[in-house]
Amino acid sequence: MRASPARLASRPKNNEFRMPNNLQVLIDKLPTDKLTADTYRLAEAPAPVPEDGEVLVKTTSFAITAGTRAGLQGSASYAGAPRTGVVMNGTGVGEVAASNHPDFAVGDAVSAPTGWQIYSTHAGAALTRIPPDHEPVDYLGPLGVNGLTAYFGLFEVGRPIPDNTVMISAAAGSVGHMAGQMAQQVPTRIVGVCGSDAKARTLIDRLGFDSVVNYREDNFRQALKEATPNGVDVYFDNTGGDILGSALRRLNAGGRIACCGVVSQYDTSKPEPGPRGIPGLLINKRISMTGFLVFDFAHQYEDARRQIAQWLADGTLKHLTDDVNGLEAAPQAFVDLLAGGNVGTRVVHIN
Amino acid sequence: MRASPARLASRPKNNEFRMPNNLQVLIDKLPTDKLTADTYRLAEAPAPVPEDGEVLVKTTSFAITAGTRAGLQGSASYAGAPRTGVVMNGTGVGEVAASNHPDFAVGDAVSAPTGWQIYSTHAGAALTRIPPDHEPVDYLGPLGVNGLTAYFGLFEVGRPIPDNTVMISAAAGSVGHMAGQMAQQVPTRIVGVCGSDAKARTLIDRLGFDSVVNYREDNFRQALKEATPNGVDVYFDNTGGDILGSALRRLNAGGRIACCGVVSQYDTSKPEPGPRGIPGLLINKRISMTGFLVFDFAHQYEDARRQIAQWLADGTLKHLTDDVNGLEAAPQAFVDLLAGGNVGTRVVHIN
Repeated sequence: MRASPARLASRPKNNEFRMPNNLQVLIDKLPTDKLTADTYRLAEAPAPVPEDGEVLVKTTSFAITAGTRAGLQGSASYAGAPRTGVVMNGTGVGEVAASNHPDFAVGDAVSAPTGWQIYSTHAGAALTRIPPDHEPVDYLGPLGVNGLTAYFGLFEVGRPIPDNTVMISAAAGSVGHMAGQMAQQVPTRIVGVCGSDAKARTLIDRLGFDSVVNYREDNFRQALKEATPNGVDVYFDNTGGDILGSALRRLNAGGRIACCGVVSQYDTSKPEPGPRGIPGLLINKRISMTGFLVFDFAHQYEDARRQIAQWLADGTLKHLTDDVNGLEAAPQAFVDLLAGGNVGTRVVHIN
Repeated sequence: MRASPARLASRPKNNEFRMPNNLQVLIDKLPTDKLTADTYRLAEAPAPVPEDGEVLVKTTSFAITAGTRAGLQGSASYAGAPRTGVVMNGTGVGEVAASNHPDFAVGDAVSAPTGWQIYSTHAGAALTRIPPDHEPVDYLGPLGVNGLTAYFGLFEVGRPIPDNTVMISAAAGSVGHMAGQMAQQVPTRIVGVCGSDAKARTLIDRLGFDSVVNYREDNFRQALKEATPNGVDVYFDNTGGDILGSALRRLNAGGRIACCGVVSQYDTSKPEPGPRGIPGLLINKRISMTGFLVFDFAHQYEDARRQIAQWLADGTLKHLTDDVNGLEAAPQAFVDLLAGGNVGTRVVHIN
């Protein structure tokens, strides 16, 4: 990552609100294989000026999530074709620094698609207001896109019923560790898959997972089999690849796969073929595999947030965060995340 | 195929009904790669004797279907692990030759899982009675397992709505040619995929398909794209493999795949990996992929048969058959079918 020469803001002096300088992480080049920190560069620019109906947000923290890696791939993801010279995307929380919108006042706590930068402007409809009794950082996890993804993927797509076995890959990730705790409310047997024994212990000891299997161990398939003596009814798939292939073999007749993410395929220029047994095993076992994007459930966010906030308040749901300090640390923190370095939501704190 | 020495029946002479000799096609060895006719051998044996509650059926015709190839593979299909020395399985039609069941009389027309042989015994519950105004051969196609598979796969799993584009692979096959005609009732745009231009012409000229693409042509992907200008909403998948991969790229957001068969993977000892883009494309496009077995819809057979019989009676639905004569011709007819030689339901006539 290289710093570009600072460009100082030169707003007229008679402005009511003098725009501060903005610090941003820009996409400098598109990765051709594994992501490296020099994909990005730090830049200074004048903070944007909110137009009519817009709000200027000063970000205090933002989340780094594996799914945004797909947006850097040559083939367009749902987010569209990747571009360079733009701010890296991500969800942030912060406060209103200036407002041209009647519903928002300076100092209001909000969540927004801020990207990796300090200042950003947004239409009012793009903001989520954070009530005073909520933790802002929870809007990067359980009450944000990640938590809502876990909620709708589990309850609307996976649809576990009591006594089902629910298997979750990338179980220590931001979405996974939420989905596992939510599935306990059904209740179900929760079997996580993650990449280290330390993560496994955290999920079992702190979050109540019934069993967690390390996919990096040679005996992974056998361990998964032993962890799922009654097979698997719902598989919440954050990874695709070999773990999906292993899940297919453990799924029961009538099993359901909620396809949430493909972390095994993000950080590469050569995506693997799909697992063997597709579609043969889907037929023999009447399995359904359904891809989803959380945005399709936007009309149900309010109800979901009410339920999730209640679980947070009564201690049912714990939000694990993996904290990083400083905008300049974000690129390496993303590289580490893609290598499986995080437990819970990776949050970058700017201030 | 080699004939085994005939073993003559030696029933006591004072029996009321002297059991005739049976002619059977037995699985002689399991294929290790592509199926060859010497997988089978012809055998004679005493006809079985129906026990209390059972019926002896004399088969007049039976269907050969690609799905039964899976039952010969080393890995167990839903039908269980493959065995040698047993009669090849298949659905037949014929008449009751002897009955120990109060609901069936000698001469009644029935359909049953007869296998490739002349005589077989069945519990009453395993028989489907063929009404006098129905064509028995239609119980090997539209009113039998194949037609019901097309019906439930299309309407219960694929669920097309008016003006959808429905894509069907192995479109000239027993299931495919039915599914295509049924989808016209919605109505939808029907795009078939098959392996010869002659089949394509038949589907368009005789069965009303809107467009048919030959997957053996080099420009298949481009031709499929041109045949589906509005994308694909429902893909009825009888093949898996590369055609499934191509369909994934043409599917619209919210598209549905009814996974019915994997004919691309049956006739080999080395099943391919699944298509690239699983699960990534499923997520980006919110596609659902659902495997099904027709037997799960048994409680709805009666309603479905009523609808299908009406379509047959009023000419809405045409049943194409591909006829073969003689039990001894069945093995080679199966080999040809797996190479794509048939149009419609391949039926072996014994008498």
